[in-house]
Amino acid sequence: MLKEAIYHRPKNNFAYAYDNETLHIRLRSKKGDLVKVFLIHGDPYQWTEAGWSNAHKPMSLEGSDDLFDYWFAEIKPEFRRLRYGFEIYSDTETAVYGERGFVDKDPRDSGFYFCFPFLNSVDVFEAPNWVKSTVWYQIFPERFANGNPLLNPQGTLPWGSADPEPDTYFGGDFEGIIKNINHLVKLGITGIYLTPIFKANTNHKYDTIDYMEIDPQFGDKETFKHLIETCHKNGIRVMLDAVFNHSGFYFEAFKDVLEKQEKSKFKEWFHLREFPVKAFPEPNYDTFAFTHMMPKLNTEHPEVKQYLLNVAKYWIEEFDIDGWRLDVANEVDHEFWREFRRAVKAIKSDVYILGEIWHDSMPWLQGDQFDAVMNYPFTNASLEYFAKDKINADEFAHQLTKVLTSYPKNVNEAAFNLLGSHDTPRILTICNEDKEKVKLLFLFQLSFIGTPCIYYGDEIGLTGENDPGCRKCMIWKEDKQDRELFTIVKKLISLRNKHSAFGNDGEFTFLETNNEKNYVIYSKQSVDETIIITINNSSDHIDVNIPYDFTNKKPVDLWDNAMLKETSKIELTPYGFSIILVKN
Amino acid sequence: MLKEAIYHRPKNNFAYAYDNETLHIRLRSKKGDLVKVFLIHGDPYQWTEAGWSNAHKPMSLEGSDDLFDYWFAEIKPEFRRLRYGFEIYSDTETAVYGERGFVDKDPRDSGFYFCFPFLNSVDVFEAPNWVKSTVWYQIFPERFANGNPLLNPQGTLPWGSADPEPDTYFGGDFEGIIKNINHLVKLGITGIYLTPIFKANTNHKYDTIDYMEIDPQFGDKETFKHLIETCHKNGIRVMLDAVFNHSGFYFEAFKDVLEKQEKSKFKEWFHLREFPVKAFPEPNYDTFAFTHMMPKLNTEHPEVKQYLLNVAKYWIEEFDIDGWRLDVANEVDHEFWREFRRAVKAIKSDVYILGEIWHDSMPWLQGDQFDAVMNYPFTNASLEYFAKDKINADEFAHQLTKVLTSYPKNVNEAAFNLLGSHDTPRILTICNEDKEKVKLLFLFQLSFIGTPCIYYGDEIGLTGENDPGCRKCMIWKEDKQDRELFTIVKKLISLRNKHSAFGNDGEFTFLETNNEKNYVIYSKQSVDETIIITINNSSDHIDVNIPYDFTNKKPVDLWDNAMLKETSKIELTPYGFSIILVKN
Repeated sequence: MLKEAIYHRPKNNFAYAYDNETLHIRLRSKKGDLVKVFLIHGDPYQWTEAGWSNAHKPMSLEGSDDLFDYWFAEIKPEFRRLRYGFEIYSDTETAVYGERGFVDKDPRDSGFYFCFPFLNSVDVFEAPNWVKSTVWYQIFPERFANGNPLLNPQGTLPWGSADPEPDTYFGGDFEGIIKNINHLVKLGITGIYLTPIFKANTNHKYDTIDYMEIDPQFGDKETFKHLIETCHKNGIRVMLDAVFNHSGFYFEAFKDVLEKQEKSKFKEWFHLREFPVKAFPEPNYDTFAFTHMMPKLNTEHPEVKQYLLNVAKYWIEEFDIDGWRLDVANEVDHEFWREFRRAVKAIKSDVYILGEIWHDSMPWLQGDQFDAVMNYPFTNASLEYFAKDKINADEFAHQLTKVLTSYPKNVNEAAFNLLGSHDTPRILTICNEDKEKVKLLFLFQLSFIGTPCIYYGDEIGLTGENDPGCRKCMIWKEDKQDRELFTIVKKLISLRNKHSAFGNDGEFTFLETNNEKNYVIYSKQSVDETIIITINNSSDHIDVNIPYDFTNKKPVDLWDNAMLKETSKIELTPYGFSIILVKN
Repeated sequence: MLKEAIYHRPKNNFAYAYDNETLHIRLRSKKGDLVKVFLIHGDPYQWTEAGWSNAHKPMSLEGSDDLFDYWFAEIKPEFRRLRYGFEIYSDTETAVYGERGFVDKDPRDSGFYFCFPFLNSVDVFEAPNWVKSTVWYQIFPERFANGNPLLNPQGTLPWGSADPEPDTYFGGDFEGIIKNINHLVKLGITGIYLTPIFKANTNHKYDTIDYMEIDPQFGDKETFKHLIETCHKNGIRVMLDAVFNHSGFYFEAFKDVLEKQEKSKFKEWFHLREFPVKAFPEPNYDTFAFTHMMPKLNTEHPEVKQYLLNVAKYWIEEFDIDGWRLDVANEVDHEFWREFRRAVKAIKSDVYILGEIWHDSMPWLQGDQFDAVMNYPFTNASLEYFAKDKINADEFAHQLTKVLTSYPKNVNEAAFNLLGSHDTPRILTICNEDKEKVKLLFLFQLSFIGTPCIYYGDEIGLTGENDPGCRKCMIWKEDKQDRELFTIVKKLISLRNKHSAFGNDGEFTFLETNNEKNYVIYSKQSVDETIIITINNSSDHIDVNIPYDFTNKKPVDLWDNAMLKETSKIELTPYGFSIILVKN
């Protein structure tokens, strides 16, 4: 038994409230080391000799990564209080593990054990319910559709006439989105995430000049209102991008600082290192990265806080937006985000708060700050396996198990699962333009736990390297679009919408990973149905035995909507897949 | 190299901001496994080939517990942002460890590494500065001194005339404390923690009737004001006990519920499971433990929150108290404590917030909730070694290393280190009335990191088993007091006050632990001086070689205030100790 590998610490992914009455408990151990694990548990004030008996609950093996196994149990403590520990068995040894370490047997001392003191509802992580059934679509407004050429900025190029450069304009705008709403409706989209739309100096608008104004190239407030209404009428929610870590260089407050220097009433709004404040040769104020055009805002200052919280509330109150995506969220202080959450949820309790964090994000997902983060670890694992062939089937499963066990389950259900964005190369390009691989990426993304997001144009086969390449104009001529890809993505979305097990109601489990033939089989199991998905990630025809007992079941091929005769063994074409449904 | 034992996760005791410019980074590894560790680090936006070079900082071995070694490094990132990982060496292997796992060598990919995104001042854990140099004294007011017999409750017994029973009254009061303030001043006390003083139904007052009134047996508000002024004049701060998890059975709001039932306007103030609400045979409402006399307050309810926050503010604003000790703190919701902190710190920025938590408390010590918790893990380790002989010197060091490495260093500096309280047997009793052992406990407590607290009477040799035994009347006749013990405690406190290295300015390091002879040697090192303390925890005379190089130093025996000739070897009497000072 490798004691050094065993890990547990409460109040994060290892022990958390799933809802107002349920606790989830996880234990980590060395891969393959333990053969069974029991949760020893009791009420802290009832752990008498009597209370102790029968307080053993078997834990299930939830998954494994390269080094560790993860054990899981769910428990509903009668009085919402829990003391607990673990009775662990290897092939040859047994031990009891608690907060004070390892002992040979249950010490009958509740102080030895771990403590989840009380399940208080207000502390339970709770993302908006609607998010879990939403399929998102990310729009970079400058490049989605030009609906009103009168708004074109100076020097606007004809739509799609060139590959974009960092400073190219093609005149995308709100009317373009409104006019093309049917494209999204047909695809099955139920949420749009718009990159910044406020007045700014660039085509990407991440350098805000005025947080209270729409950039005139996109339209005015009336058009924006119309856009929101159009979306809502079509069952589509709208999320905006909050760039609160930094302002643009031409933001009034920063302009005032540059002009009046020490006398500026805004000098506390930024992190100025010395006077005179200057941008060259190096900025002597804090910035996003080292970009002098993006001075970091002092979000600890009461006036800045008030200003930005007003911005956050204004666009909800006046325009009824449904979510805020928070740019560079992890560089802003936690205290600001706590106030942000209180402020926006007070106005619209089911607004979605999505942080841009590329790393492990547990500290922001404790219930007091964000509802989700952009799930780049999911992105990395999916791309490395399906797109880049950098990892094998086992490694793919390990990475995903690591993602899933790094967070509470209620966090995973609201995670923003993207395959690409305006900050990454496009998936078709990463796949060396092999469309078959892109289909597998979409299949996996759309059948996984979380809330998937499609980057505009990926569904019709847009290509592009990293920024600026990935910000090409959307193609609207149907004969230039990849309609087959569109149809497949549409069908996958409809499966997700029709079968709750395909989406967040389905418990995700790897049934098999095969490195030799390079396939993976996983199931999504809900109360009513089980969906078994097999993905051939190789260029070979393969035979696969499905490790599932179909006795007395009536399996249906969900992709071709046909009854299946032989299901325990299937044939798959290169990069082919199978989606089998059985009723439980 | 045992990869499974290696652990790091940012934003807790493993990576935290020590102050506005300093980050502390820790790594855990299997005990004895690694021979050296380097911190690889850089700015996330500067990790070019050039930026990477020279970004290796050796980490020091901070300590070990039974299974693990802990490695430590301090770093001041120029732009307050950090990506980092660990280059680790065993005898035979080397590897690089980052957020994505283990690789053979530096992958030159900042995404692989751990992330401390930005050091925002407002998120830095910061306890009041004065706490770090405070020596506390806990008073159970009913039993400290009876200064005004006119206030005696009915049935009050003559002072000290009997061993206390759960419902005995001896008439201790505020005037008693005021009249005996010199006892505390002489001892060197600079902070008093008073268990509850508000109107309640018992002698311990943990069942509050009215949070806005002083219990009449203690005095009135005027006397309380006089008490605070007397303390402040004598350089003593005052902390009150906030019993906010539950009220008393006779609290107006709960009385109203019992009377008016479903029609009570206070029915949301508690966690009522059904109507009619009743206390017997079992309470059908949530309580502290299973005590029907202590109905749990619904601290999520806006009115309850408002009421309790007003209480918290009232006693600061009107009486200038200096701290709140929070009873059963971990069963109240985090959100309440966050509001509590904002509310009280807004009025008095250096008020001390101390939570009663007996378990691992990292989730409450992130800077947004408490300044400290009652450090019972410290208590346990100290008692098991010095008082109970349950563990050997190594195990003692392991347990303390675990306590220290479980928290950030700035948290440890404000930790409330107690040896006993009204909830535990008295130390002299635990020591089987062996006073020599009690002296060692005081020596260790008063030379350790944190803010020590003496339970009233322990300094003059009071005895007593668990409640009610540990709540005996204070002895005021000097010939009945253990004055030798008093003098020793007083001397230890004066050493702590005189030599900053003795207290929180001294970095704590175990120099040696010897199981055979049962002694420990540790050093406390500040910028200017090093104090080396050797404790003989055995009933034998022993010789000890001190593992410290005294070449060219002028060591002073701090206890006897004499120059030392021979210091590398010392003799200790049974349960004797040595305190040696050298200037660095």
